[in-house]
Amino acid sequence: MSLDGLISGPDPDMENPLGIRGARLHEWLLKLAVLREYVGFEGGEVNASTQVVEEWLSNLGASIMGRNTFGGFPGAWDREKPPWPGWWGSNPPFHHPVFVLTHYARESIQLEGGTSFTFVTDGIESALRQARAAAAGRDVALIGGAETAGQYLTAGLVDEMEINLVPILLGSGKRLFEGLSDDMHGLRLIRTIVAPTAETPTVLHLKFAR
Amino acid sequence: MSLDGLISGPDPDMENPLGIRGARLHEWLLKLAVLREYVGFEGGEVNASTQVVEEWLSNLGASIMGRNTFGGFPGAWDREKPPWPGWWGSNPPFHHPVFVLTHYARESIQLEGGTSFTFVTDGIESALRQARAAAAGRDVALIGGAETAGQYLTAGLVDEMEINLVPILLGSGKRLFEGLSDDMHGLRLIRTIVAPTAETPTVLHLKFAR
Repeated sequence: MSLDGLISGPDPDMENPLGIRGARLHEWLLKLAVLREYVGFEGGEVNASTQVVEEWLSNLGASIMGRNTFGGFPGAWDREKPPWPGWWGSNPPFHHPVFVLTHYARESIQLEGGTSFTFVTDGIESALRQARAAAAGRDVALIGGAETAGQYLTAGLVDEMEINLVPILLGSGKRLFEGLSDDMHGLRLIRTIVAPTAETPTVLHLKFAR
Repeated sequence: MSLDGLISGPDPDMENPLGIRGARLHEWLLKLAVLREYVGFEGGEVNASTQVVEEWLSNLGASIMGRNTFGGFPGAWDREKPPWPGWWGSNPPFHHPVFVLTHYARESIQLEGGTSFTFVTDGIESALRQARAAAAGRDVALIGGAETAGQYLTAGLVDEMEINLVPILLGSGKRLFEGLSDDMHGLRLIRTIVAPTAETPTVLHLKFAR
């Protein structure tokens, strides 16, 4: 999230799925060795963010995302014949079952590297139930986007929330917290990490838990 | 600012000038000994926030605010006869000259304890010029609100910005960053303080400077 509360910039399209300059929100993540290794690349940095990403990935069994996070900007993938396979390519970086919230029923997809996409049309609780079963005791991660996160937060179904706050402005785009109440459902800030170093901060990791 | 980017809650009125639950954003400040001493009270806490407030107050010579920060919710003070004296009472907590941006010309007010309110109708640069002259080499603080802060930020006239981020949701209210571009005008995050302690965080102080 940017300082002005956005998780993407304006005018998302195929070349800039996170909108204009929105990719700046993920720069801290994409250069980390722990993330690069998870998605199959070598090299990268080890810094104060490493612990945060290790906590996210180390016990991960399944993920949940909204349809736009799966497959692009509003309206993009329903128009495609054959169906738009999503942003994530033939070997997605998840390597576990992913459950996609959508109003449009669709066959599951099994892809290289252990990633599957299962499309869930009967709501967030069903998606969570299926993801928990698939995770078999490991963690279920909520990838995004903002509406999906807001729905789970509002339903009181979020156990932990990590806000990766990048201290820049994007001006306009998609807000993370939009149309919610003031109810954090028992979540409170329990840990702050400044990265890569306290002297050269480019991201703040704010961990909320019950 | 709340986690959802708000600096006040919904439905501000005379009893809740910061809107419903908006006062929670200032709780960390009002309990500090350094703030209480400045406004004429005894007691209070010393914790990791103390340094931040000392930096703000120690070399302060003048302040600038918008008309709603001076005198209430939209429309409140222009309707009053005699003119609404503002939220701040007969002995305001500033103890120095305050310049109020407004479209409505009005006589200056000199109050107890060294606070004066001067009403500036010819724009933000004029207000800054007058405040700098009054401060005579000391700091000029920009008190708020959001529109005033945004105008100075957009004009590139902000040298330092301290965001006091309270990790709660307010749901709706006034956004600090609304309708701005992505231009921080050279400001970047230089310091983060978690207070009152890293183990029990209730506010994050994010200092931006050139």
